[in-house]
Amino acid sequence: MPSTALLTDLYELTMAQAYLEAGKQGRAVFSLFVRELPPRRNFLVACGLEPLVRALENFKFGKEELSYLKSLGLFKDWFLDYLEEYRFKGDLYAIPEGRIVFQKEPLLQVEGPLPEVQIVETLVINTLHYSTLVASKAARCYIASGGKTLIDFGLRRAHGPDAGLHGARACYIAGFAGTSNLLAGKEYALPVFGTMAHSFVMVFEEEEEAFRAFAKSFPDRAVLLIDTYDAVEGAKRALKLMREGVKVVGLRIDSGGVEKLSKQVKKIFQESNFGHIKIVVSGGVEERSIQRWLSRGAPIDVFGVGTKVLTSSDAPYLDMAYKLVEYEGRPKVKKSPGKKTFPYKRQVLRHYEGGYMTYDEVLPYREGGMVELVCKDGELVKPLPKVRDIRETFMEDLSRLPPELKSLDRKLKYRVLLV
Amino acid sequence: MPSTALLTDLYELTMAQAYLEAGKQGRAVFSLFVRELPPRRNFLVACGLEPLVRALENFKFGKEELSYLKSLGLFKDWFLDYLEEYRFKGDLYAIPEGRIVFQKEPLLQVEGPLPEVQIVETLVINTLHYSTLVASKAARCYIASGGKTLIDFGLRRAHGPDAGLHGARACYIAGFAGTSNLLAGKEYALPVFGTMAHSFVMVFEEEEEAFRAFAKSFPDRAVLLIDTYDAVEGAKRALKLMREGVKVVGLRIDSGGVEKLSKQVKKIFQESNFGHIKIVVSGGVEERSIQRWLSRGAPIDVFGVGTKVLTSSDAPYLDMAYKLVEYEGRPKVKKSPGKKTFPYKRQVLRHYEGGYMTYDEVLPYREGGMVELVCKDGELVKPLPKVRDIRETFMEDLSRLPPELKSLDRKLKYRVLLV
Repeated sequence: MPSTALLTDLYELTMAQAYLEAGKQGRAVFSLFVRELPPRRNFLVACGLEPLVRALENFKFGKEELSYLKSLGLFKDWFLDYLEEYRFKGDLYAIPEGRIVFQKEPLLQVEGPLPEVQIVETLVINTLHYSTLVASKAARCYIASGGKTLIDFGLRRAHGPDAGLHGARACYIAGFAGTSNLLAGKEYALPVFGTMAHSFVMVFEEEEEAFRAFAKSFPDRAVLLIDTYDAVEGAKRALKLMREGVKVVGLRIDSGGVEKLSKQVKKIFQESNFGHIKIVVSGGVEERSIQRWLSRGAPIDVFGVGTKVLTSSDAPYLDMAYKLVEYEGRPKVKKSPGKKTFPYKRQVLRHYEGGYMTYDEVLPYREGGMVELVCKDGELVKPLPKVRDIRETFMEDLSRLPPELKSLDRKLKYRVLLV
Repeated sequence: MPSTALLTDLYELTMAQAYLEAGKQGRAVFSLFVRELPPRRNFLVACGLEPLVRALENFKFGKEELSYLKSLGLFKDWFLDYLEEYRFKGDLYAIPEGRIVFQKEPLLQVEGPLPEVQIVETLVINTLHYSTLVASKAARCYIASGGKTLIDFGLRRAHGPDAGLHGARACYIAGFAGTSNLLAGKEYALPVFGTMAHSFVMVFEEEEEAFRAFAKSFPDRAVLLIDTYDAVEGAKRALKLMREGVKVVGLRIDSGGVEKLSKQVKKIFQESNFGHIKIVVSGGVEERSIQRWLSRGAPIDVFGVGTKVLTSSDAPYLDMAYKLVEYEGRPKVKKSPGKKTFPYKRQVLRHYEGGYMTYDEVLPYREGGMVELVCKDGELVKPLPKVRDIRETFMEDLSRLPPELKSLDRKLKYRVLLV
């Protein structure tokens, strides 16, 4: 991984120089939290800690970075020397990835000498914000899917390659079966899926010829895209091949009219005793379309979910902040209108009743609760969990989420008590 | 730059193997275009070509990538050998970065042997989509700003580091003065800006002490954040320092009530003959707030624009597609409902009247028009322009955009004739 040190707003470094010059190197705690949830979110899924830990390991100012900073004519030589020596040696207190969280809860708290923990602000927000955003949106799709298979197809319209990679990871954590994204498959050992595009069908003179060519190259797992010209005709051509003994595992529909088409196609296959064929739907899919189609009995087995989840299009950002809450053991509070903060390092205790979470308490830190010490003096205190285990954490928390909060609309605001 | 070869949906590779197996290696043309603009966009700004050319140069399957692909058990050995040898050797026809474009216009056309130009689909869309999305949103801010200074502060809530980097570049191209993002400053020689955060003020016992410390470390360019506790009191403290001879160039307000506060603060400074002080505003800023504040006479000099532009929050994606339009010299057309495509490689001719663009024609390709040959057989035909020149291209096009299309609302749909 290349250096992440310049993934930083200039002001982090100007502040750090001024802190050092003013002798402000005491121990500080910053807290990362979401002030209020977007209107269409009842909960969030904490996500992005492992990518952050990786990024912090590579937060090093090398020659190239230092010579650029020197060229700005802003920084003093002793400060550039400080940056050259800089390694993140702070403590990280985090709510583990996969846990369901709410407004004002400290997803991450960073403790260490003030300049050292200030400098990483931009990187910390950038990393945790996006993963949490996507996991929270993907979880809504998972709820809507009622056990059907979800696959992330979002790389192409995600905001850059990094969003594609961490978006795929976040989707998997929130219940998706896998992704079309090969880099995510490789980096996080996620199952990868893929079919064919319309261009594939169009290159051949006849649709049938295209289907045969694809099934020949992938004899055990061909999923055929049937709607390049006419979905019902495409389905009939696929059926013809299957009757000849060609193995086809699924049919994909990527255009409008999904509900009607999926029913028509399924019927054709059922009448021919090929009712086991999987129907895959893609194109603008998100939680509301999934819920609508399934509630109307559309026989869809697999949803290819892309753009709207990887851009979290109905809520493309969270009001996430990284705020100073403690300096040299004293409370720090910001009073700007609408941006009030709460002091001290914090713990979160979750209360349950009848198997469901009922409310959370956010109180001054002590051991034992949702917040765990992850890094001490810049070193991991134990290995981070694998994505598969994080997914289990999410599933457990989801099973304890009150049914009202699983609604795709806002029914209830979960109670978070700041003590 | 690390390999970009796995920034690819699995289906690009399954199709490529099946193409090769079926002998489909003829010359193909794919066209990248936006089907329809989002409701709140009257135009787009073409952006992202240079990052794409860089990414294509690094589209190489190395040992690590190949061993991952082999592990999937999907691909034949001869195909993995093909990938090992793969280098992008196609032709790129593009509308230059910075140009204003509309629905259905071919931002990029990629020509070459079919499997070779299919494989890069995901990377092509991923790269051009985001830059074009942000440049188009940033251009709206530029229009609203009426010559005031705009600075990108969006890295923290951009969707990953790559979005922060290319978002900053896109903003600069669309008229911003610079960015807070150091990596973008370094990579694209963009001017960088920065002030201080609330945490800086909070660390000191007194706000005044914080201001003094910052101004001491940056004697010529201190911008003080005045609203940690109370913006008017903060402004008075800044004024006190200035009266003592401390140099302060600007004051930043980052909370609600910007219109009223900026007027109050400006008045205090004018009455004391420090009316030249710059007022900087940040926090949820986008084109509509800029327009509203300026229309009500808020004396703001600099807008720090962040999250809403780098996530293009009111339109977080474009309906951008990469479609086969020509194979072996023959037209290719998709007929799926709502997704009809037009065949052949295309040129765009723009027509003007009275100095303003009036309509565009998209017609079969010939030289001379907005579409230019950028790469031939994988090699640049001439060096790509610098961001500064791309910005000039944008400014020229903007000066010829009809005033109705500069409205922040949809007044008119620009006419694009497909011939």
